[in-house]
Amino acid sequence: MKTLIRGGTVVTAVDHYRGDVLIDGERIAQVGTDLSWIQVDKSIDASGKYVIPGGVDVHTHLDMPFGGTTSADDFQSGTIAAAFGGTTTIVDFAVQDRGGTLRQAWETWMGKAEGKAAIDYGFHMVMRESTEALRKEMGELVKEGVTSFKLFMAYPGVLYLDDASIFRILQRSGELGATICMHAENGPVIDVIAEQAFAQGNTAPKYHAITRPARLEAEATNRAIALAEVAGVPVYIVHLSAAEALEEVAAARHRGIPAFAETCPQYLFLSYENYEEPGFDGAKYVMSPPLRAKEKQESLWRGLRLNDLQVVSTDHCPFCMKEQKELGKGDFRKIPNGAPGIETRMSLLHDGGVVAGRISLHRWVELASTAPAKIFGLFPRKGTIAPGSDADLVVFDPKAEAVLSAKTHHMKVDYNPYEGRRVRGVSDTVLSRGEVVVEKGKFVGKPGRGQYLRRATR
Amino acid sequence: MKTLIRGGTVVTAVDHYRGDVLIDGERIAQVGTDLSWIQVDKSIDASGKYVIPGGVDVHTHLDMPFGGTTSADDFQSGTIAAAFGGTTTIVDFAVQDRGGTLRQAWETWMGKAEGKAAIDYGFHMVMRESTEALRKEMGELVKEGVTSFKLFMAYPGVLYLDDASIFRILQRSGELGATICMHAENGPVIDVIAEQAFAQGNTAPKYHAITRPARLEAEATNRAIALAEVAGVPVYIVHLSAAEALEEVAAARHRGIPAFAETCPQYLFLSYENYEEPGFDGAKYVMSPPLRAKEKQESLWRGLRLNDLQVVSTDHCPFCMKEQKELGKGDFRKIPNGAPGIETRMSLLHDGGVVAGRISLHRWVELASTAPAKIFGLFPRKGTIAPGSDADLVVFDPKAEAVLSAKTHHMKVDYNPYEGRRVRGVSDTVLSRGEVVVEKGKFVGKPGRGQYLRRATR
Amino acid sequence: MKTLIRGGTVVTAVDHYRGDVLIDGERIAQVGTDLSWIQVDKSIDASGKYVIPGGVDVHTHLDMPFGGTTSADDFQSGTIAAAFGGTTTIVDFAVQDRGGTLRQAWETWMGKAEGKAAIDYGFHMVMRESTEALRKEMGELVKEGVTSFKLFMAYPGVLYLDDASIFRILQRSGELGATICMHAENGPVIDVIAEQAFAQGNTAPKYHAITRPARLEAEATNRAIALAEVAGVPVYIVHLSAAEALEEVAAARHRGIPAFAETCPQYLFLSYENYEEPGFDGAKYVMSPPLRAKEKQESLWRGLRLNDLQVVSTDHCPFCMKEQKELGKGDFRKIPNGAPGIETRMSLLHDGGVVAGRISLHRWVELASTAPAKIFGLFPRKGTIAPGSDADLVVFDPKAEAVLSAKTHHMKVDYNPYEGRRVRGVSDTVLSRGEVVVEKGKFVGKPGRGQYLRRATR
Amino acid sequence: MKTLIRGGTVVTAVDHYRGDVLIDGERIAQVGTDLSWIQVDKSIDASGKYVIPGGVDVHTHLDMPFGGTTSADDFQSGTIAAAFGGTTTIVDFAVQDRGGTLRQAWETWMGKAEGKAAIDYGFHMVMRESTEALRKEMGELVKEGVTSFKLFMAYPGVLYLDDASIFRILQRSGELGATICMHAENGPVIDVIAEQAFAQGNTAPKYHAITRPARLEAEATNRAIALAEVAGVPVYIVHLSAAEALEEVAAARHRGIPAFAETCPQYLFLSYENYEEPGFDGAKYVMSPPLRAKEKQESLWRGLRLNDLQVVSTDHCPFCMKEQKELGKGDFRKIPNGAPGIETRMSLLHDGGVVAGRISLHRWVELASTAPAKIFGLFPRKGTIAPGSDADLVVFDPKAEAVLSAKTHHMKVDYNPYEGRRVRGVSDTVLSRGEVVVEKGKFVGKPGRGQYLRRATR
Repeated sequence: MKTLIRGGTVVTAVDHYRGDVLIDGERIAQVGTDLSWIQVDKSIDASGKYVIPGGVDVHTHLDMPFGGTTSADDFQSGTIAAAFGGTTTIVDFAVQDRGGTLRQAWETWMGKAEGKAAIDYGFHMVMRESTEALRKEMGELVKEGVTSFKLFMAYPGVLYLDDASIFRILQRSGELGATICMHAENGPVIDVIAEQAFAQGNTAPKYHAITRPARLEAEATNRAIALAEVAGVPVYIVHLSAAEALEEVAAARHRGIPAFAETCPQYLFLSYENYEEPGFDGAKYVMSPPLRAKEKQESLWRGLRLNDLQVVSTDHCPFCMKEQKELGKGDFRKIPNGAPGIETRMSLLHDGGVVAGRISLHRWVELASTAPAKIFGLFPRKGTIAPGSDADLVVFDPKAEAVLSAKTHHMKVDYNPYEGRRVRGVSDTVLSRGEVVVEKGKFVGKPGRGQYLRRATR
Repeated sequence: MKTLIRGGTVVTAVDHYRGDVLIDGERIAQVGTDLSWIQVDKSIDASGKYVIPGGVDVHTHLDMPFGGTTSADDFQSGTIAAAFGGTTTIVDFAVQDRGGTLRQAWETWMGKAEGKAAIDYGFHMVMRESTEALRKEMGELVKEGVTSFKLFMAYPGVLYLDDASIFRILQRSGELGATICMHAENGPVIDVIAEQAFAQGNTAPKYHAITRPARLEAEATNRAIALAEVAGVPVYIVHLSAAEALEEVAAARHRGIPAFAETCPQYLFLSYENYEEPGFDGAKYVMSPPLRAKEKQESLWRGLRLNDLQVVSTDHCPFCMKEQKELGKGDFRKIPNGAPGIETRMSLLHDGGVVAGRISLHRWVELASTAPAKIFGLFPRKGTIAPGSDADLVVFDPKAEAVLSAKTHHMKVDYNPYEGRRVRGVSDTVLSRGEVVVEKGKFVGKPGRGQYLRRATR
Repeated sequence: MKTLIRGGTVVTAVDHYRGDVLIDGERIAQVGTDLSWIQVDKSIDASGKYVIPGGVDVHTHLDMPFGGTTSADDFQSGTIAAAFGGTTTIVDFAVQDRGGTLRQAWETWMGKAEGKAAIDYGFHMVMRESTEALRKEMGELVKEGVTSFKLFMAYPGVLYLDDASIFRILQRSGELGATICMHAENGPVIDVIAEQAFAQGNTAPKYHAITRPARLEAEATNRAIALAEVAGVPVYIVHLSAAEALEEVAAARHRGIPAFAETCPQYLFLSYENYEEPGFDGAKYVMSPPLRAKEKQESLWRGLRLNDLQVVSTDHCPFCMKEQKELGKGDFRKIPNGAPGIETRMSLLHDGGVVAGRISLHRWVELASTAPAKIFGLFPRKGTIAPGSDADLVVFDPKAEAVLSAKTHHMKVDYNPYEGRRVRGVSDTVLSRGEVVVEKGKFVGKPGRGQYLRRATR
Repeated sequence: MKTLIRGGTVVTAVDHYRGDVLIDGERIAQVGTDLSWIQVDKSIDASGKYVIPGGVDVHTHLDMPFGGTTSADDFQSGTIAAAFGGTTTIVDFAVQDRGGTLRQAWETWMGKAEGKAAIDYGFHMVMRESTEALRKEMGELVKEGVTSFKLFMAYPGVLYLDDASIFRILQRSGELGATICMHAENGPVIDVIAEQAFAQGNTAPKYHAITRPARLEAEATNRAIALAEVAGVPVYIVHLSAAEALEEVAAARHRGIPAFAETCPQYLFLSYENYEEPGFDGAKYVMSPPLRAKEKQESLWRGLRLNDLQVVSTDHCPFCMKEQKELGKGDFRKIPNGAPGIETRMSLLHDGGVVAGRISLHRWVELASTAPAKIFGLFPRKGTIAPGSDADLVVFDPKAEAVLSAKTHHMKVDYNPYEGRRVRGVSDTVLSRGEVVVEKGKFVGKPGRGQYLRRATR
């Protein structure tokens, strides 16, 4: 099966050119100025549009049990929504049970994806304990292509690991060439502050943000980097939200330390003010770390431009307002943490980044696709348009507009944090390994067609 | 009883002038260009010498149980040695027992000093737990003049407190106007590294230093300051040794955060190389934090000049090589942590600081006497030469020389870390509350004459 | 003649105590807890008030020709106003004529002060050229007690010196132990911007500020420090106004470079908004560097607390609105640069600094008196209260209030930049070398009684 | 004419893949996993080798009059040497004569290249004056494709422009979308120091370096960036050599300022020690800025990794030791400034950068080709391997080794600064616009075939 994408402007993290892309089976076979003379089975007209590598979202939580409920999207609805948004690869998080093995967790999550995923997927492994047996088992998981492990400095009693535990896992990651993803907030202190706030009768959603000060994200970020530095290994800070934390990453990098970090669209486009929306609406934005002050957003953009931030992922972890977020009415601490975003990332970044003049077209592709693929062992299979790479491609119409809304989105969640926002730039046709999965506003792929991705080590 | 100190150069943290000091009873009554016409009971000729306020050493450990043994100086030998060195006030550390109250600890340490102390003394309180009852009791201690509390981020299982515990105590200190003294090293991670080093057969004293990297002092310093910042209170970092930690203090101060820090002579004059002395001699220098790289010393001096470091204290905690330090032969982790210094601080700082041109004469007095008195609620009673202040005075001969040695020092410990070092500047006559306690190389005071100092809050 | 100041709270840069000060002739003879038994000629009751060392203002321009006119205060009116404000020493600027010698300039300015000055005074020397002869002559001036030289990086064609000229003078100052005071603004570029603004019809006073961006003060500050560093000498930045310039000073100091800087009350209490006062009133605030954005003021206060700024002087250079400032109606470039302040410094700093909780009482004395005296070779004669020092003393009532106004001030200028501002803290009785010069709101000294101060080198 | 480069590993700034490159005429037509079935006129076997975009050297001085002599390579020998080294595009500097127009200079340099250049070339324009007429004429030059202008803060009396002149040109560049290249050293102060050194009898080559301290490069860099910031335009610092200057660039970028900089291989691989080679050999390395301390080299590498430095160019400006460098025997100031490097850049960077593990393969291509093409308006025609781009391609053998030597190099200069250095990675076959110009160690192109490149604005 040969497919030709014709007449578009091919855009990668470095190049842009008017050209054709020839797909042979699941892979890109050729790119050229004019390949129209080649006989193909299917031809897609991309004239006036960009042809970009499919998005790589390395931070999603599908079918994820948390806070007494489960995130609203499973691997079917979630990956279909991703595809609509121009994302063709996700890396989700398997979560080790206390007392359980890593393999059990991996198999559980493989089962969740099996038969459902519409695009390709990989897994990070969340470790909730740091026993010698588990650290040994990390090597087994790496062999299965789980080459990154996520640790939490927040959520004591649930996901939190202490510094000594973290340090031992960092050391082990160094032996394996694996990458450690860190949730960097000082959870034990945050819990004290939250408890005090609640005891004083402060129960509204906004106290979620007030009790998680930026300084405690910066502190944990500093600490995560210090432990990694002493262990002699890289570290990757997930969902960085605070300008103060970014300063820590930037300073470490300036000293030559291999510290990396991602941020998410919500930290670029939403802010603390959202928590003050009327009634219980602030709960829509309850996530950790929380949204920060609006005036700090430009610092994050600068970090993206200067490569102190290398990736934009979503931390997609949707909970419906009804029955889920509502669990925290009367106690902000019980609002499930998380928000949807898997579908809106590429358009938001294009609109608020490229069109707004904050980042270049190439940087957009790099942040949303190339860099995460490179950092997490998926490159060059994913993340670029080059001969031999998977034909995960998006025909992206930079002039088309859309209005983000829960009424029209494909995520299974009853609100959209960007409700009513008009964005310029929309994914048009989306291909995954050479197969068209989204076309003319319809999902035309098949749930379960997505493949598990064995990822490489560093 | 009136005493006149005549003809010296009076030196304070800001002034220097040729003048006379009149003492009436325990206090300074007058200073003047010429008070020789006043009738006095005793006259001390200070011509050619400095008259300085007695040293204030806010970090000593006398009669201190640690690591299965007890520090070699008790309140008698320790305070006499202090007096010989020109120090007339100490603030020592009472240590709460697990399960015990703060008052019990205070009374225990009051008992240790009673009848023995030759100079005035106060106490900080080491808290090993952070229960609500203890935090409440902090208020009682403040009323008794114990207005500072020391917490440990190192020594898990012994003195270590976790971040949540520390944070609650920081908050409480804010309510009381008390000061928190922090031992800032990431103990849990250090213990992992030390265990690994030992498991690899690395048992020599130098591994004490190798397993406590500077970055882990910097990390804990950053964290201590962040917790204090979030709690809205000042914090005082004790025995700062690493240039990297100093950077954290300096950066915080530059942001306007009330962070303070002391260093000690050992970090200014000794260095990692000392650990490589032959045989077991490296054990002499086993203290925490450890001695650092020689080339970083100038950073500390710069910190002292720029006031990023406000105090030079000793962390005097002597253990004899024989029977004490020897406990760690074959396992560096068992070497009692600490070294003597209460007697040598003023001369070392004069010699290596003032004479060497690194700090001014005024800054010497400020670092060794005025600033610690101000920070710890003893000023203006202690720390200066002004009408109404306690007549704690030292006639200091800047031209006299001495050779530091265990053979001649008055500390009850069988080695001197500076053995053989020649210093310029020696304390000559020492007065405590108007009473001569050291004269012509002899201790002429009386053990037990020292008074407990109730210290003020901020 | 003996005078006793009784019962006040003596405050110096380090001490505060309830005590008496005995003056014998021109100097302080004794300080003591109670000297009331000593027979004196005059006794001043200071109970309930502070007794502080007289202010030292190291940046004044009396009888100064500039921009086709002359500053409105001569040495008589200016020094009397200073005395009213609690300042007992000034260091003014003699200005070398192009083609003239330094001695000629010094003698000219000595003549201006002669018979007029009511308090003691010294001179810096402004050099407008950097010939070998003049650099040689610097040594002669140092012998006369002119131990500091001021250079301009601004005002091309008038006072500006190029980098090579500045560098040679910096080198020479190193040989002499003299201090270089630098006006740090990039004048040549500012003149381009100002010319362009005027050409575009922007003639109002506010364009004075708009055409002198903070970045060009920061740039010149960086450059001044770099040249001094290469020459191996200290440098003192005058009237620092921009937070960005302060960053340069702080960074240099952090690297160990001996960079010093002063700011002035106008930069702490006034801001850009003042230029937008109605009509031509913005001209009141036309000075160089200009007033900056209000939100940057706190950076300067932090610099004062952290000692990145060591001195607060006035840059007193008054021009009347009538006939003087008016010269620039229709062309902001022709408004004489300067504003009055010699009289209001001590009270403003007390009110907005000490009472407002931004600086301590001691730091107030240090910034306004002790530090400038030390930096400019006047200490310990000036700048402190100690036996042997000049009896330049101010009985300062911290609770008295005053309203600053042109109607009541003693400066010969027809406006007050702080018109109507109420300040807490007023100089009550002022003594210069033992002689009361201001008492009960009256000047009781004698013009011409002020003495020239030969200042020491570093 | 169709050419196929088969079986190599195509490497761009972002991609690497095993693939074929099809050239049709002067441009790249296709890249694909296997294009061997396409009929071509010429086939080049690249198996086991890299296929990279030809190098872009944006800083060369061919046929350049300087210091009373002329650089040893003209456009023929220089561009042939470049081609041997894998560089297929240069941007050289036309130099305006005082009193002359920019067009005259451009035409003069066009004439120098005409009939000689073996590869494509563009020109920056050096402006030695800043008259209104010349600034107006800049617009004409931009239309001719001269879209960057170089200014000198060094060499007073020869090339130096004062700040006001520079500022006006910066402003004009903003109107035109042109780029300003800045030689950032404080020339006036350097000349004072050099004059003093010479007067003291210090005549040897090493005084060239001693009289040009790093701080004066940092100062000028700070100033250049400040002027650009105030003018609201980007600035590009040429041949950055000092870590201290890099700090200025990095700090500005961190503040969001569009500052850019290049360094050169000599600053990465040679150091001050070279000036101390015996006899007059230090003259080989006399260039401005000079070589710096060896221990600072790692800072530059870090800058290259972190993108604080975006480009590595050569500043190729060769002078023979014989008759040229010798002009400065007895007076280091008369040694012509410059050294050869046009031929050795790509191999040195591969060997000391990629093979040594300091930069990635992609970053090597980016620094040496893609980034300079993008910054100077040549992209995507030059600087990448993509359909539609010029077929400027290098088959680079990463395993081949070569020994750098004047005996074998193709530059017309009688020494090689890296004499005897063995490098891994050698350009094998070199194509310029589809035409093989270097093959099997021979130049097979034709002088004069190189085309002038009209460059785009920003």
